[in-house]
Amino acid sequence: MDKNRYCVIMAGGQGTRLWPMSRKAYPKQFQDILGCGRTLLQITYDRYCRIVPKENILVSTHVDYADLVREQLPDLQRGQVIHEPAFRGTAPSLANMACHIRTLNPKANIVIAQSDQLVLDETKFVDVISRGFDFVAENNKLVVVGIKPTCPETRYGYIQVDGAPESDFFYKVRTFTEKPQYEFAKIFMDSGEFYWNSGIYIWNVQTIIDTMSKYLPEMMRTLEEIYREIPDRDQRRRRGYEIYTSFPNASLDMSVMERADNVYVAVAEFGWADIGTWETLYGTMPKDGDGNVVLNCSTLKYNSHNNLIMLPKGKLAVVQGVDDMLVIDSENVLMICRKGDEKEIRKILNDVKMKLGDKFL
Amino acid sequence: MDKNRYCVIMAGGQGTRLWPMSRKAYPKQFQDILGCGRTLLQITYDRYCRIVPKENILVSTHVDYADLVREQLPDLQRGQVIHEPAFRGTAPSLANMACHIRTLNPKANIVIAQSDQLVLDETKFVDVISRGFDFVAENNKLVVVGIKPTCPETRYGYIQVDGAPESDFFYKVRTFTEKPQYEFAKIFMDSGEFYWNSGIYIWNVQTIIDTMSKYLPEMMRTLEEIYREIPDRDQRRRRGYEIYTSFPNASLDMSVMERADNVYVAVAEFGWADIGTWETLYGTMPKDGDGNVVLNCSTLKYNSHNNLIMLPKGKLAVVQGVDDMLVIDSENVLMICRKGDEKEIRKILNDVKMKLGDKFL
Repeated sequence: MDKNRYCVIMAGGQGTRLWPMSRKAYPKQFQDILGCGRTLLQITYDRYCRIVPKENILVSTHVDYADLVREQLPDLQRGQVIHEPAFRGTAPSLANMACHIRTLNPKANIVIAQSDQLVLDETKFVDVISRGFDFVAENNKLVVVGIKPTCPETRYGYIQVDGAPESDFFYKVRTFTEKPQYEFAKIFMDSGEFYWNSGIYIWNVQTIIDTMSKYLPEMMRTLEEIYREIPDRDQRRRRGYEIYTSFPNASLDMSVMERADNVYVAVAEFGWADIGTWETLYGTMPKDGDGNVVLNCSTLKYNSHNNLIMLPKGKLAVVQGVDDMLVIDSENVLMICRKGDEKEIRKILNDVKMKLGDKFL
Repeated sequence: MDKNRYCVIMAGGQGTRLWPMSRKAYPKQFQDILGCGRTLLQITYDRYCRIVPKENILVSTHVDYADLVREQLPDLQRGQVIHEPAFRGTAPSLANMACHIRTLNPKANIVIAQSDQLVLDETKFVDVISRGFDFVAENNKLVVVGIKPTCPETRYGYIQVDGAPESDFFYKVRTFTEKPQYEFAKIFMDSGEFYWNSGIYIWNVQTIIDTMSKYLPEMMRTLEEIYREIPDRDQRRRRGYEIYTSFPNASLDMSVMERADNVYVAVAEFGWADIGTWETLYGTMPKDGDGNVVLNCSTLKYNSHNNLIMLPKGKLAVVQGVDDMLVIDSENVLMICRKGDEKEIRKILNDVKMKLGDKFL
C-alpha cells in the first residue's frame, strides 16, 4: 500500500443532535448505534484500513475522548491519537493536523474522514478514495467527495459543480450551499449539477498548507512558527494548547473551501449517509412494513407507524398506537419526541443543562 | 385495642393489568408505585395497624411472594404470613382463612383488606372500619364497604342498596353489579342508591363460615373436616395443598355475597381508589396543568398532554408532542400505549409470553 497515504479520522464531536443516545461523556462515534457489534469509529477505521496503511491512520479527538479512542482501536500507537486542545471548528483542527503530518512525511496525501458516516458499497468507496489520492498526488488541488443525491434531502449541504469534468470524474466546484429548503433541494437534484457534501476531503499536505496560508494567513503563520521553533512533539503540544485556543472558531468549508479556486469534487455513488441527526439515521436504516426503524432492541408493535425506536440491548419496546415518534431510551434518559420536531432537541438540551445539571447531558 | 379484631391483607395477586411495572416476580403491591417511600403493601399494613392489633394482622399471599412479604413487613411473625397454595379465587382463600382464624380465636371479627388501594382520609377510614367491626360483632351479618361515587366510574363494580339504612349507616344490599358502561354508571351515580364495591369486607368468623357453608357446602365441609382432623398447622398445610387445588375457582362476590341475604353495605366517603389498572392510577393521581401524571421520575414536557409517565427513580423523561399515552419504563421493558387502549395489555402480555418467553413477564 502507498506509504504516502494518510488518513485523519475526525472523532472529536459531541454529537448533541443525537442526544440522549449520544452523551457528552460518550458521544455517538463511540457507540454501536447500528447494532452491528462495532462502534461507528471502529467501522470507519476498518473502512480506511483498506486504503491507507494502518500506521498512517490518525484519529483526531478531544482530549476527553482519547482513552475511548485507544480502547476501541487498540492497534493505534501513541502518536496516532491526536488531541484537539479545544473545540475550535474544523479549520484550525485540520491546519494543525496538516502541519503535524508534514513532520512525519512531507509528501503525504491525506484523506479527512468523518467518524459518523455510513457507506454501503465499500468496494466503490475504496475506488473513489484511491482515485482521489492519485489525483491530489499529481495536482495542487483539493478534493471533496460529493455524493450523487438519491432524494431532495434537506439535511445535507450541497456542492454545485461545473458541467463538464476537468479530468476523469473530478469536477471543478462552482459553489458550496448550506442545507436547502425542500423546494431548492428538489431543483438541485433535478439539475444534475449538485452533489451532497460528504465532508470527506482529500489533499496533498503541502497543497492544503499553501491554500490555508492564503485564506487564514495569521493562523497558519502562528502554526508554522510553532512547528519550526519547537521540533519536540510533547513540548510543542504544551505550547500549542495556549495558542490553539486563541484561534477563531472557523469551519473549513466557509473559511477555505468556498473561497479557494483549486477545489474539485470527486463525484461518487456508494450508498452514503451521515448519521448526524435522528432524522438522517431514520432515513438511512431499513424499515419494517409500517415504516418503523428499530435499533438494538426487541419490539412488539401494534398499530404503530414511522417511528424510530432505540433502546438498550436486551430491552423490549412495546408500542401501541404510536406514530411518527422518536423513542430513544439511553441510560438515565428516555426521550419521546415527534419525528418532525427534532430541531427541538437543541432547546431541550439547553433546558436540561439549565434546569437539571450535567448528569443527563 | 380490641383483641378480637383481625385483619387479612390480600396480597397474592399478580397485578398483570399494571404490567410492565408489575411483574410476575415482583407484583405491584410490593412496589413503591406512588413514589412515597413505602410500597402499597406497607401502606396498607400501616393503615390497618391503627385499627387492629399488630399481632392480629395476617397477610395472605402466594407461596412465591412469602419472602417479599416478610422482607417488607419485618414485624410479622411466622404465623402471620399465610400461603395461598394456588390461585383459586377469593372464595376458597377466604374460607380457608376463616377456618384458620377460628383456631386462633373463635370470637374473631375480621376485616378483609386489599393491598392495592389508596385511601386519602385515614381518620374517616378508621371510623368506618371500626363501626363495621362493632356491627358484625353484634349481628350475624356480613359487611362490605361501599364507596359513595364521585364520578360515573366504569372501572369499578357497583352495589345497589335499599333506600333506608337498617341500623345507623349500614344499608342492606339489593344487588351487586359488574363494571357498568358509562351510561349506566351515570344513572347509578345520579340515583344515589349505588356505591362502588371496595372489596373491603368485615365479618365475624362464625358468620362467614356459616354463610359459606350454605352457598359452598362441599368446599366448606372439606375444609372443616381437615381443620377438625388435623389440628397441627404444618401437617394440615401439607394436606391442604392437595385439597385446595381441587376446589373450583370461585369469587366471593359471585358465589357468596350476591346470593346471601345477610349482606350490608357500610357506606363511606374517605377518598378511595383501587390501583388496579393504569387507568385507575391515572384517574387517582394529581395532575399538572396539562393533565399529565408523572410518577417517580423527573420530566421535561413540551406540548404534551394527559399522559401517565412512570420511569425508574432518577431517570429523566423528555416528552415532546406526546398526548394521551401511557409511558411505562420498568426494568427490561418500555411500554408506550394509548391511554384508552390499555385493555390491549392483556393481549400484549399474551404475545410477550408466546413470542418472547418469561423474562419480560
